[in-house]
Amino acid sequence: MTIIVALDPPLFVDPYEWIYTRYIQLRDVVEGFKVGLPAIIRLGVEKISTIFRDYNKFLIADLKLADIGDIMSLSIEILATYGFNAVIAHGFVGIEQALDIASKHCKDLGIKLILVVSMSHDGSREFIDKHLDELIDIAKKIESWGVVAPATRPEIIKRIRMRYSSTELKILSPGVGVQGAEPGIALCNGADYEIIGRAITLSSNIRESALRIKEEQSYRVRQCLGSL
Amino acid sequence: MTIIVALDPPLFVDPYEWIYTRYIQLRDVVEGFKVGLPAIIRLGVEKISTIFRDYNKFLIADLKLADIGDIMSLSIEILATYGFNAVIAHGFVGIEQALDIASKHCKDLGIKLILVVSMSHDGSREFIDKHLDELIDIAKKIESWGVVAPATRPEIIKRIRMRYSSTELKILSPGVGVQGAEPGIALCNGADYEIIGRAITLSSNIRESALRIKEEQSYRVRQCLGSL
Repeated sequence: MTIIVALDPPLFVDPYEWIYTRYIQLRDVVEGFKVGLPAIIRLGVEKISTIFRDYNKFLIADLKLADIGDIMSLSIEILATYGFNAVIAHGFVGIEQALDIASKHCKDLGIKLILVVSMSHDGSREFIDKHLDELIDIAKKIESWGVVAPATRPEIIKRIRMRYSSTELKILSPGVGVQGAEPGIALCNGADYEIIGRAITLSSNIRESALRIKEEQSYRVRQCLGSL
Repeated sequence: MTIIVALDPPLFVDPYEWIYTRYIQLRDVVEGFKVGLPAIIRLGVEKISTIFRDYNKFLIADLKLADIGDIMSLSIEILATYGFNAVIAHGFVGIEQALDIASKHCKDLGIKLILVVSMSHDGSREFIDKHLDELIDIAKKIESWGVVAPATRPEIIKRIRMRYSSTELKILSPGVGVQGAEPGIALCNGADYEIIGRAITLSSNIRESALRIKEEQSYRVRQCLGSL
């Protein structure tokens, strides 16, 4: 079970209905859900929480927090109040008076903190990639539960995994499917979860697509482990 | 008229009521409002829009966007739909496939784009400050309406103003009041607006505090222009 489904409802749909139908079809076949900022600002966390009321796997708020500590902490407390159990933040805001405070709040509230250390778009090379090793170290230093690194850039996933084991730092990899990476590739390179959005959520048969992708992941992981 | 009020309702209040009462008391004495991420995720933009329905000055969504272009654009479209006319994003995500797309969407929708180029917390020195000049240039290159730079660090405000005039790039400065900068100091150094939160919103007489701070701004600006 290694799929986390990215929920990003398009503009011209009822976002509540859109998320709800996908949740119902996928909840027993995937490891968790990541709700994007656009859906969160559109619906508000209270309304979103009514969809996931009895869910006990990963429910990640992808806010990509990048603010001073007090503001990130306030957001984290609101997320915890409404049933989220993980949040994504940026490493580049730094530790002092920012991630140190956010990290403490996450621990106190039982929220998993996940740091972005690399992104899939070309602009990631302009600043973020220049600080990759420092960002990975920050993730470890503040005792993040995991990091986000794109499936489309396996060399980065390997680099993180060479520094820290899976028990020390989880790797979550978006970019599988529509963005170009084949299912299982990130796992072969050391990722713990593949975050998959449109390849599942916009397919004509959502549940079938998720099950098929799980099989592709298993096949590729067996292959890279050399058992095929 | 140079005050923009930062609205960040504390956790244990009704955030709708809290924002509404402050809006009513302040709307005719300040230049605009900046609504923070915590309040936006808590209430959702649709509900927030009912407070500001007939407002035509600045209404800034302080999301500190830092994502790939498609996700930032989706957020920007949602903001535009619900009456926001400005949004804050991070320069750190870079231009290609990120800020280039966000900037185009802002222009198409009549939304003012404001980039963070420096922050007030100590962690800003770890990464962001090292790229100050590049971030300022990115703001100009993608034709941002303005940038955010802290009132507590006047040398940075001066540096931005030396590179670009006020007609080229507006400077919005938070950090006035509780965070330590005195009203008017950022204006004296070249800022166009001072963003003021708790010194107004948590005071016992909200409207009085705003009016008093306006007077302090005027006094200090006259002083630094040498007319006192």
